[in-house]
Amino acid sequence: QCSLDSIVDKKIKEALTGLELNPAPTKRISCTSVYSKGRLSSCPAGMVVTGCACGYGCGSWDIRGETTCHCQCSTMDWTTARCCHLV
Amino acid sequence: QCSLDSIVDKKIKEALTGLELNPAPTKRISCTSVYSKGRLSSCPAGMVVTGCACGYGCGSWDIRGETTCHCQCSTMDWTTARCCHLV
Amino acid sequence: QCSLDSIVDKKIKEALTGLELNPAPTKRISCTSVYSKGRLSSCPAGMVVTGCACGYGCGSWDIRGETTCHCQCSTMDWTTARCCHLV
Repeated sequence: QCSLDSIVDKKIKEALTGLELNPAPTKRISCTSVYSKGRLSSCPAGMVVTGCACGYGCGSWDIRGETTCHCQCSTMDWTTARCCHLV
Repeated sequence: QCSLDSIVDKKIKEALTGLELNPAPTKRISCTSVYSKGRLSSCPAGMVVTGCACGYGCGSWDIRGETTCHCQCSTMDWTTARCCHLV
Repeated sequence: QCSLDSIVDKKIKEALTGLELNPAPTKRISCTSVYSKGRLSSCPAGMVVTGCACGYGCGSWDIRGETTCHCQCSTMDWTTARCCHLV
């Protein structure tokens, strides 16, 4: 009986350690800014737009097609998209 | 002895596969814009505000009650909240 | 044979329950605003900037050193950084 016990215990331990049950690596948010001339600026694939900045002190913007900042003020020289994702 | 081995191995394998130890589905950030007339716009429950856009080129805003963009400029026609969550 | 079966089953069950294979706690995004006088405002360590608000209706800002909002308009009285992280 005791040999059975230790055999089974040993096998189970081997099987479980082989599984490398370490928890998934903790994720965090990482962001970057994408500056473009003109009134449009887009985030790279895989990143989302969390906010936009515009030239000429303009705070009126909208997002086009999920990843592009569009600055609305009549005269516009630059647009920056703030882009984030999980790493 | 060998029959014990194979029995134990077989049982362990069954137990572990039954556990479906596949890693948690990878999460990503998803965002949407909520446009409202006037100087207030709120994110839906479960989403957070990452930034705000305002009419009249206004870039002065603050967040009220965790999920509401408030555009501060004296005249205001619309407010957009940029809302994000993990999916 | 059947005693072997039940012994092995029992041991495996004990080993697995001992592992507490509960899935990692679901994460979510949490954000806060950091208001500062002047034209700079920074997020606390461990948080990222997702957007900035500025005084005087200014919507022209950029991010310095990953975590600091910089409001660009000529006259500036306050800056707010919108800061987010996973909790």
